[in-house]
Amino acid sequence: MLLTLYLIGITAEAMTGALAAGRLRMDLFGVVMIATVTAFGGGSIRDLLLGHYPLTWVAHPEYLLLTTSAALLTIWIAPLMSRLRMLFLMLDALGLVAFTIIGVKVAQSMGLGMPVAVLAGLITGIFGGVIRDLLCNRVPLVFQKELYAVVSLGSACLFLVLQQMAWPAWLITLLTLAAGFTVRMLAIRYQWHLPRFEYNVPEK
Amino acid sequence: MLLTLYLIGITAEAMTGALAAGRLRMDLFGVVMIATVTAFGGGSIRDLLLGHYPLTWVAHPEYLLLTTSAALLTIWIAPLMSRLRMLFLMLDALGLVAFTIIGVKVAQSMGLGMPVAVLAGLITGIFGGVIRDLLCNRVPLVFQKELYAVVSLGSACLFLVLQQMAWPAWLITLLTLAAGFTVRMLAIRYQWHLPRFEYNVPEK
Amino acid sequence: MLLTLYLIGITAEAMTGALAAGRLRMDLFGVVMIATVTAFGGGSIRDLLLGHYPLTWVAHPEYLLLTTSAALLTIWIAPLMSRLRMLFLMLDALGLVAFTIIGVKVAQSMGLGMPVAVLAGLITGIFGGVIRDLLCNRVPLVFQKELYAVVSLGSACLFLVLQQMAWPAWLITLLTLAAGFTVRMLAIRYQWHLPRFEYNVPEK
Repeated sequence: MLLTLYLIGITAEAMTGALAAGRLRMDLFGVVMIATVTAFGGGSIRDLLLGHYPLTWVAHPEYLLLTTSAALLTIWIAPLMSRLRMLFLMLDALGLVAFTIIGVKVAQSMGLGMPVAVLAGLITGIFGGVIRDLLCNRVPLVFQKELYAVVSLGSACLFLVLQQMAWPAWLITLLTLAAGFTVRMLAIRYQWHLPRFEYNVPEK
Repeated sequence: MLLTLYLIGITAEAMTGALAAGRLRMDLFGVVMIATVTAFGGGSIRDLLLGHYPLTWVAHPEYLLLTTSAALLTIWIAPLMSRLRMLFLMLDALGLVAFTIIGVKVAQSMGLGMPVAVLAGLITGIFGGVIRDLLCNRVPLVFQKELYAVVSLGSACLFLVLQQMAWPAWLITLLTLAAGFTVRMLAIRYQWHLPRFEYNVPEK
Repeated sequence: MLLTLYLIGITAEAMTGALAAGRLRMDLFGVVMIATVTAFGGGSIRDLLLGHYPLTWVAHPEYLLLTTSAALLTIWIAPLMSRLRMLFLMLDALGLVAFTIIGVKVAQSMGLGMPVAVLAGLITGIFGGVIRDLLCNRVPLVFQKELYAVVSLGSACLFLVLQQMAWPAWLITLLTLAAGFTVRMLAIRYQWHLPRFEYNVPEK
């Protein structure tokens, strides 16, 4: 189940990357590159920081075909994207929570404690988008938008709490997915966001 | 002593990150995230480049409480920051030199030579701020401002030179701190800076 | 031969970094830093992603003297750069293909398959420039410009195909260099570029 969700996740992330590249009128190579980096960036940064080798796309380069296809498909269906927006946001939300759970499990498989596991989940969930925004020369959306990172953070914590129960793994995964997905959808619907910090004194 | 200075350093770096996030009106999550990345970014990049695992915050996730607290405190005391500016710059300068010394010692503990030790010190000292500025979508200050990187570079070299003497470790550390701190304060006071290179021919 | 080309490559890359820094009126430190990161960035990212330690500049810190000298030389000869433009683009093209071949060979020396070897070549070829552009706060040129990344990608594939022949290593390297160099020069001359993807729907 988690593999399926992972594949949905990298597809959705690749599509957000391709759209961001299209907003900058990048060429085909740029579109595929940004899509790929967005899809694999979060997991790759997690693996670099934890020293967890080989990276996913090194072990499974065939996944690159999926993200490349998703990027090219996005170019093709771009005129329809505004009508598909809700479907797209739903896939993106599923991918976010799936990425988070996978990140937590990678840290646990390395014997790391709960705080680092939560961070590994968060990094896997959001850093693909952070790198996408860096490469597109804009402040990462995730630091400004409605609840996105918080959904990842909360899902990681919930997953760890549920593990304390003697429940089967699939149930814990499913509950975390359902909760994270629901909160993310509500946050989009009602534009929930965290309070902002405003500081206007210029540098120097 | 170096641990105390390290903790001062990550606190001061976290505060510069939080202020930069506030200038972009980021939300609470963004503020804490930028603060954390600024505080641990330099050491993490050094560790990735040298293959020095585990990273500091993976081994000591409790330090994240310190940087998170520093970020939240910064939001709270932001209205006073302009009056606290000199204290803040002093802590930042101490942290810069402490980071540099720690970076040099990490490289030495891995058996690396003097040139790489100097670079490890420099990277530890300045790359937290570089990542902060990347995430805030601006050209890194350290490539343009008055002597900051040069203080790190000079402190690393001085530390290595002093090590050639048969002096106790605490004395070498103290002398390096005193020298680096003094030069940094003078550079701020008298706005010392390196000559600039200006090249106006447009790309292509 | 490949070492000579590598040294030409890091020199040319360092010069592109120094010029980009000059366009932002960076100070001497910033110029040397951007030049160094541009020259070693692609290989370093490849090595981090593949877990290939130690990095080139850690094993050979003397190469840093070359890139630092190239950066300082660039400041000195900047007024002549527009007249030297074609020579400079030729060195840059040679360096691009040399970097690519080196990246492919590093991946092969680690026993990695062909898809990852191609990616390693591509990353080595273009990511120095990507980091340069990130640090200079602009969208990476390589995602928008005339054929540059595609030359790297094509050279990597050609190199792998030629390896299937029972030809000596120097011949394979030479043929790849000649082909990649020629295509790059033609792309500059005739402004070949990939089709662009344009997507104008704003975020949210």
